Amino acid sequence: MPIDLSHDPAVSELAKRTAEFVRGVVVPEEKAYGGVTARGGDEMRVRLQQAARDAGVFVPHVSPEYGGHGLDMRGRAPVFEEAGYSLFGPLALNIAAPDEGNMHMLEAIATAEQKERYLRPLATGEVRSCFAMTEPAPGAGSDPSSLRTRAEKAPGGWRIDGRKWFITGADGAAYAICMARTSGEPGDRGGATMFLVDADNPGMKIVRHVETLDESLYGGHCEMVFDGCVVSEEAVLGEVDKGFDYAQVRLGPARTTHCMRWLGIARHAQDIAVARAADRRLFGSRLAELGMIQAMIADNEIDIAASRALTLQACWELDQGRSGAQSTAVAKTFTAEAVWRVVDRSLQICGSLGVSGDILLSRFLREVRPFRIYDGPSETHRWAIARRVVRRHLG
Amino acid sequence: MPIDLSHDPAVSELAKRTAEFVRGVVVPEEKAYGGVTARGGDEMRVRLQQAARDAGVFVPHVSPEYGGHGLDMRGRAPVFEEAGYSLFGPLALNIAAPDEGNMHMLEAIATAEQKERYLRPLATGEVRSCFAMTEPAPGAGSDPSSLRTRAEKAPGGWRIDGRKWFITGADGAAYAICMARTSGEPGDRGGATMFLVDADNPGMKIVRHVETLDESLYGGHCEMVFDGCVVSEEAVLGEVDKGFDYAQVRLGPARTTHCMRWLGIARHAQDIAVARAADRRLFGSRLAELGMIQAMIADNEIDIAASRALTLQACWELDQGRSGAQSTAVAKTFTAEAVWRVVDRSLQICGSLGVSGDILLSRFLREVRPFRIYDGPSETHRWAIARRVVRRHLG
Amino acid sequence: MPIDLSHDPAVSELAKRTAEFVRGVVVPEEKAYGGVTARGGDEMRVRLQQAARDAGVFVPHVSPEYGGHGLDMRGRAPVFEEAGYSLFGPLALNIAAPDEGNMHMLEAIATAEQKERYLRPLATGEVRSCFAMTEPAPGAGSDPSSLRTRAEKAPGGWRIDGRKWFITGADGAAYAICMARTSGEPGDRGGATMFLVDADNPGMKIVRHVETLDESLYGGHCEMVFDGCVVSEEAVLGEVDKGFDYAQVRLGPARTTHCMRWLGIARHAQDIAVARAADRRLFGSRLAELGMIQAMIADNEIDIAASRALTLQACWELDQGRSGAQSTAVAKTFTAEAVWRVVDRSLQICGSLGVSGDILLSRFLREVRPFRIYDGPSETHRWAIARRVVRRHLG
Amino acid sequence: MPIDLSHDPAVSELAKRTAEFVRGVVVPEEKAYGGVTARGGDEMRVRLQQAARDAGVFVPHVSPEYGGHGLDMRGRAPVFEEAGYSLFGPLALNIAAPDEGNMHMLEAIATAEQKERYLRPLATGEVRSCFAMTEPAPGAGSDPSSLRTRAEKAPGGWRIDGRKWFITGADGAAYAICMARTSGEPGDRGGATMFLVDADNPGMKIVRHVETLDESLYGGHCEMVFDGCVVSEEAVLGEVDKGFDYAQVRLGPARTTHCMRWLGIARHAQDIAVARAADRRLFGSRLAELGMIQAMIADNEIDIAASRALTLQACWELDQGRSGAQSTAVAKTFTAEAVWRVVDRSLQICGSLGVSGDILLSRFLREVRPFRIYDGPSETHRWAIARRVVRRHLG
Repeated sequence: MPIDLSHDPAVSELAKRTAEFVRGVVVPEEKAYGGVTARGGDEMRVRLQQAARDAGVFVPHVSPEYGGHGLDMRGRAPVFEEAGYSLFGPLALNIAAPDEGNMHMLEAIATAEQKERYLRPLATGEVRSCFAMTEPAPGAGSDPSSLRTRAEKAPGGWRIDGRKWFITGADGAAYAICMARTSGEPGDRGGATMFLVDADNPGMKIVRHVETLDESLYGGHCEMVFDGCVVSEEAVLGEVDKGFDYAQVRLGPARTTHCMRWLGIARHAQDIAVARAADRRLFGSRLAELGMIQAMIADNEIDIAASRALTLQACWELDQGRSGAQSTAVAKTFTAEAVWRVVDRSLQICGSLGVSGDILLSRFLREVRPFRIYDGPSETHRWAIARRVVRRHLG
Repeated sequence: MPIDLSHDPAVSELAKRTAEFVRGVVVPEEKAYGGVTARGGDEMRVRLQQAARDAGVFVPHVSPEYGGHGLDMRGRAPVFEEAGYSLFGPLALNIAAPDEGNMHMLEAIATAEQKERYLRPLATGEVRSCFAMTEPAPGAGSDPSSLRTRAEKAPGGWRIDGRKWFITGADGAAYAICMARTSGEPGDRGGATMFLVDADNPGMKIVRHVETLDESLYGGHCEMVFDGCVVSEEAVLGEVDKGFDYAQVRLGPARTTHCMRWLGIARHAQDIAVARAADRRLFGSRLAELGMIQAMIADNEIDIAASRALTLQACWELDQGRSGAQSTAVAKTFTAEAVWRVVDRSLQICGSLGVSGDILLSRFLREVRPFRIYDGPSETHRWAIARRVVRRHLG
Repeated sequence: MPIDLSHDPAVSELAKRTAEFVRGVVVPEEKAYGGVTARGGDEMRVRLQQAARDAGVFVPHVSPEYGGHGLDMRGRAPVFEEAGYSLFGPLALNIAAPDEGNMHMLEAIATAEQKERYLRPLATGEVRSCFAMTEPAPGAGSDPSSLRTRAEKAPGGWRIDGRKWFITGADGAAYAICMARTSGEPGDRGGATMFLVDADNPGMKIVRHVETLDESLYGGHCEMVFDGCVVSEEAVLGEVDKGFDYAQVRLGPARTTHCMRWLGIARHAQDIAVARAADRRLFGSRLAELGMIQAMIADNEIDIAASRALTLQACWELDQGRSGAQSTAVAKTFTAEAVWRVVDRSLQICGSLGVSGDILLSRFLREVRPFRIYDGPSETHRWAIARRVVRRHLG
Repeated sequence: MPIDLSHDPAVSELAKRTAEFVRGVVVPEEKAYGGVTARGGDEMRVRLQQAARDAGVFVPHVSPEYGGHGLDMRGRAPVFEEAGYSLFGPLALNIAAPDEGNMHMLEAIATAEQKERYLRPLATGEVRSCFAMTEPAPGAGSDPSSLRTRAEKAPGGWRIDGRKWFITGADGAAYAICMARTSGEPGDRGGATMFLVDADNPGMKIVRHVETLDESLYGGHCEMVFDGCVVSEEAVLGEVDKGFDYAQVRLGPARTTHCMRWLGIARHAQDIAVARAADRRLFGSRLAELGMIQAMIADNEIDIAASRALTLQACWELDQGRSGAQSTAVAKTFTAEAVWRVVDRSLQICGSLGVSGDILLSRFLREVRPFRIYDGPSETHRWAIARRVVRRHLG
């Protein structure tokens, strides 16, 4: 069979329905809120998710068993991109970070019992969750092996101690998936285990919201302390000491779905800029007729097309069961920088209006900047990409 | 006399004193406020300006007659750069936009009486001012000749009608310098006049603060309405119909002093990043020993050096009484983009910490982005630069 | 059917065989000649093409009827890329410009008789051809409608008068496909016709080889004069006045196959650089362990992956019978610049050795630079891309 | 004294005279030769240098004692830039690499006797010279301390053994200044000595011309072998084991004068492009009226201005007797890349004509590319720049 780049009709139809839903229902909400989600308060989330359920576009990525459409990575690409057209679209479809990645991982490695208790309510939108891996320096960050949070055997289970930060969505989450070291020392490449920790565990506390340039993710980016946090044996997710392996299971797809969502924002930015350029006159011409503006519009188009093509390549490899380590790193690095360029150019096209709160571009700029850092800074990915290239050469 | 690139010792000494003042007194304040100035409230301004007076670094650019040090453009360069090291430094020294440019222009073209009434209290820090030129599309923006606000002869003076926006510092200003069309039609390259309008004029109203990506400028960016705003003949600044010429008098130096101030922020960003890189360890190395980090540090150094050198060239031309049209456009275009790159790289070096509110880099990023648009978008400057090059070729 | 990015096994097998052939047989030849083909002399072409025939990799793109493998655009992608790994690979496989594009067009629009007379000997490698469209300024170039060469009805056929330049492969070609204006005036968007002109026609003369930065294309880039060049009615290719439409038929695929071939060179450049980086030591480290070198290797990898993905997207659209105007322009613009960056970085990695003739990188640099201009400069494509985006917006 | 950016009138006058000489006498010659100097043959050099003597613009940088104008670094800047407007200008004025740097160094450290024997005939143009430092990998290159050529005490002097390459101007040089290790091992940061070796020394042989992308430097880039090359004690330049220090004396100014000369080429490229843009029409507009072309022209102007300003800063520091290590590295890194961008954009503006040999741009492109590698690759300079920044921070 030769290469086929057309999506399954059912996927295309779902993407189309998602686009209509997001533009009709979610974008107006986004404008009203200026793209910023409140720290507390679950009202908007509940309302938008109900609307998504009604529109038949809810949780497209989980299996029908949990109420979803069971899309593989290739199928997610166009649907998530349409959802990402609004900062609130992923929230509405229940495919926002970190919940989306957590569902993906729980479906892959949780026990049947854990699935009932943690995956089902997450998939249905009953609760939110968080993924507690990153630590303040010198702990786990770009280099996960620096992990310092420790879990030690305790009567009836484990006791976790450590500090985490940049834990997205922690405030309001029903539980955390916490990565802790069960053997070895910081710097060792193994020895981590994942634990499911309920929010009401008295040993787990959110100590503050870390203020960040981006402000649209529900539940913020929190700093958390695990202080004598005791959990049962059933809290272990997967096997002991295999946490880093599972993190890889989560990270490849998670960084790829990030690309899909941010592509939606890039397209939205381009649409705003093109509408402005087609309308606004300067020095006797429409902006859209000026060469420097055309160059920016064309570069946006090229960046979007290339990001989408690289993301699709990564999806396909993941769907084939391949590791996708190189292709997801390539897609993430390029897309994070391309989306940033697209939003930056779009804002520039709009001039003063672009930096104003009257349109959403300055909000988009703030939201996409961290994408070049979250899920691995571009530099870390480049380092890893180059190492794989050289290793391939050395055979 | 051969070329001499050493500053006058008195200038160097003032720059040194400014640096000490800003780092000792202003930077702590900036951290406390996260770099954001309140909309209302003059308490911090009054306090910082008194401290600057006490430190002998207040209004370095105006003549001694008005309490300043009478620095020419070359002398301003190092002093303003040191002041710009903090977002609040220019405010403290009373050299922030738009007041600094207004003092410069008033000193150049106001009558003796106008100087006493408008310049003196501005120079002493008793009041603030604003410059009301930019209009919402399709009015005056990148193309000043689109000016639509009109002033017509009225009994005893003039009546001004029109709408302005992005009027920096308007909220709390004691007066506005308003540009209005006194002859011709939008699109004509002449026919504008500047008027001094007191804040208590009932015909001039601030209708809203325009929310913007940047948030550090005192008095915000406001939208204003002039509705049957009557002023006397004495309100005319300079001659009738010469407003565009005066705007040029203001704009060349104003965009150059912007470069100086933003250079300070770029250096501050680099200092934060270098301190982090020298301290933080990753994968067994200090960040500062990793090649990709070194490349960013070096590029920052190069960008800062080139911006400073181009700014100095522009200063020198302006001090020679030359128009500086080309050199100030070159300096502004390069510096606006270079400062942006420096802050962006510095933030990237700091990783997650960089996008957090724990350090000032994400604030700096927000503040410097509009510099590529304010005072003429890079595209407009490039267009003007190229036209001059071609005209020079055609002889 | 969901998206499938795996090539047909027969295509993969042919690509693999092509890779072996090119590396085993063609690359040594390329090294011997320093990548430069002689102006005259057909000996190497005949020899390499015979080797390709023997290896079963000859003319993969034409139908079996003419001795080829009948690959569609998607199938050509990996095979042409492998061929392009050497500057002489496309020549060996008989898929070099302009012959490859001419075969494509003749197969699409020539009469049965014309196919026998012109396509068959071209496909078998018996002869070479050229495509005479571009004219010196102010004639047809980036703007084809500027076409000035004229064809007028003459007894028994047509008489062509005009001047062409940058006619690739003209020296030694058995015939030219000449674009001439049969109605309208320069600037009109219609009125062009294509003519098949035999090399021995006394009215067609090659007046010089235009020296160019690139030197690897057989038959050079020539300036030609048509002076009272009389051809019969049978020389008309397709219909009168439809030449611009046919040019589009040729250009979309032609610019896409260019991308495939140049991708091969980019990979070759990267391979040379990686081998050097893995081997060479500097300041106590292998080059490949230095961050700035790793960044260049990673950026090469990303540029190659994105170029390939965009090219494949264009192929797929063309294979679906869609115009591919936007996708081929996007692929060509990105790939031309990406390949240039890859070769430039690879050369930089190799340092002084890179600019020397001891390895092929400086040759590659010279060969790929014009790709940003040939087949439409990047600026013309960006202009066209932006216009389509704006038109799409305006509905 | 405040900063003064006006050149001494005598310098300005000499620069003006140089400009007239180069455009009137040298540029026509450059066109005739296509910018390529013959390997052998001294006829053109002798002729152009005589013309420069007649025009009073010969050897502007050496002291009047040796026939020059005694210009300091600041004075050289505008004169060398005007000379550099043509690839042959530096040759004509006898300020081409490596002779110019050798004169500079000989004037600084040679004995009176050595000056008479080596500097005087070099300054008068009677002979040419070369500087034999660079070695093939793994010898001295980006990292001079890798020096492997050895000099050992021998009866009556020293015996030198080793291999050098990329020795510019070696073919036809009357003598070489050879850097050899007199103590320590490759990797040690000291232990090098400079020797003056006459061309007729039977122990010094040119084994080949290294073919390079650039082809305009007289005497080419040669590979040389020192095989039992015996020299007297008088051949030692400066003190034994101080060679690396002297190399620094030479390198700072040498890389700065490179910037001056290449700036001339950048201006020439821009002039060619602007003339073309002002003349050529496309799609009904002059090229110079199209925004994307204007952006390129403006970026050229900015790059040229920034390069010149950074170069001047470096000159000034060197003239103050400061090391200039950071400022010359910054100027060289920026200028090498800026000049490359300028030539690349200029060529792009000219389209097909730009890659043709009909104008000089493709020649310029070839000549300037190695500038990003010669005298230290950009990466090495960035590494050194960053290290100095970090060291400054650490105090």
